[in-house]
Amino acid sequence: MLGQEGPIIVYRLPWTWKCSKLLMKSIHAGLNTVAAILAIISLVAVFDFHNARKIPNMYSLHSWVGLAAVILYMLQLLLGFFVFLLPWAPLSLRALLMPIHVYSGLLIFGTVIATVLMGVTEKLIFALQSPAYSTLPPEGVFTNTFGLLVLVFGALIFWIVTRPQWKRPKEPNSVLLHPNGGAPEGAEGTMAVNFGNMDKSDSELNSEAAARKRNFALDEAGQRSTM
Amino acid sequence: MLGQEGPIIVYRLPWTWKCSKLLMKSIHAGLNTVAAILAIISLVAVFDFHNARKIPNMYSLHSWVGLAAVILYMLQLLLGFFVFLLPWAPLSLRALLMPIHVYSGLLIFGTVIATVLMGVTEKLIFALQSPAYSTLPPEGVFTNTFGLLVLVFGALIFWIVTRPQWKRPKEPNSVLLHPNGGAPEGAEGTMAVNFGNMDKSDSELNSEAAARKRNFALDEAGQRSTM
Repeated sequence: MLGQEGPIIVYRLPWTWKCSKLLMKSIHAGLNTVAAILAIISLVAVFDFHNARKIPNMYSLHSWVGLAAVILYMLQLLLGFFVFLLPWAPLSLRALLMPIHVYSGLLIFGTVIATVLMGVTEKLIFALQSPAYSTLPPEGVFTNTFGLLVLVFGALIFWIVTRPQWKRPKEPNSVLLHPNGGAPEGAEGTMAVNFGNMDKSDSELNSEAAARKRNFALDEAGQRSTM
Repeated sequence: MLGQEGPIIVYRLPWTWKCSKLLMKSIHAGLNTVAAILAIISLVAVFDFHNARKIPNMYSLHSWVGLAAVILYMLQLLLGFFVFLLPWAPLSLRALLMPIHVYSGLLIFGTVIATVLMGVTEKLIFALQSPAYSTLPPEGVFTNTFGLLVLVFGALIFWIVTRPQWKRPKEPNSVLLHPNGGAPEGAEGTMAVNFGNMDKSDSELNSEAAARKRNFALDEAGQRSTM
């Protein structure tokens, strides 16, 4: 179920900042698609294993939370593909959905970490049975250490992804340089131009509030110039 | 173990923005202290219960992750008390540690959610025993639903705490208006004044990079005027 950490931090590698936004988006989408396919294969394997061994499905909190995470992940992937990768969504919709996309991505990642920890706990209990479980045999130490490392790994990804200095800088004046942004649609081009003008007029303002607002609007909307 | 969510979101209630920073910091510290005391009482209760029933301690991943969270929480509380509540730490140290403080607080909260989910999983397995656990009896549905609600609750707190529009605004020119900031120490007063000057000179710059940098420096340093 892990495997989202690559696409999550892909914009946060400074040596990729010279690459085009479209390339980075495609890598982000591609890695997430690979992770999603692996997640589906894993789910099929689990259900097949359960069915072959006559074990019921979906009885544990691990399975409930895990399936919820996978479903949310698929929705996130679809939303990302249609709204942020395909060039048709208006900029206003992108600006509206980007904070939700970022939040959901991190939430799903955290949920997956929790699912792994529950799965590891459950698997150890099933494998050792009572009372061996409570004697903390070497398998227990190994499994608990693995669980702790998963948590540390999650914490590291969460650190990388929340450092402002590793945030990919916005393309400066990208929309102004390419008013139609290579976009296939007239309406979208207008949006982009309006957005560019907004940027230009804003840059004449000196107040912090405006600068802050502008940062949010631009950083979170996703730039269109490379599309 | 939950109970951190109150202090976590306490700065994010717009109706508290008119209250002084010192008052809000004190509420933040006070609620965290109450939560920490409750956490210690809970731990003592768990160890007493285990010892009375001759159950070994600290064998599960739940206990490892949970104890790690409590230890980190105590360190976080001490760090917060000495660096951010007491008036002696220089502003540069506060600015350095504030992003770590915010990150750690959220990480500990997320770790506690994961600990609860593991604990709930484990408790249900112990209570039902195999094979009743895998038949998902009403207790199972209840427990899994409770676990899902804990997760939804965590997601809600995470949403509240990451919305920029709910971030407490910085006190405008607070340090310039009160150059000594009511601070008891000369060196600190100098820091505050320097900080004020930096703010003033920065506000003459027009570039977004400077505005962004300034935002981070000010927002994350914690203002001193109310101390």
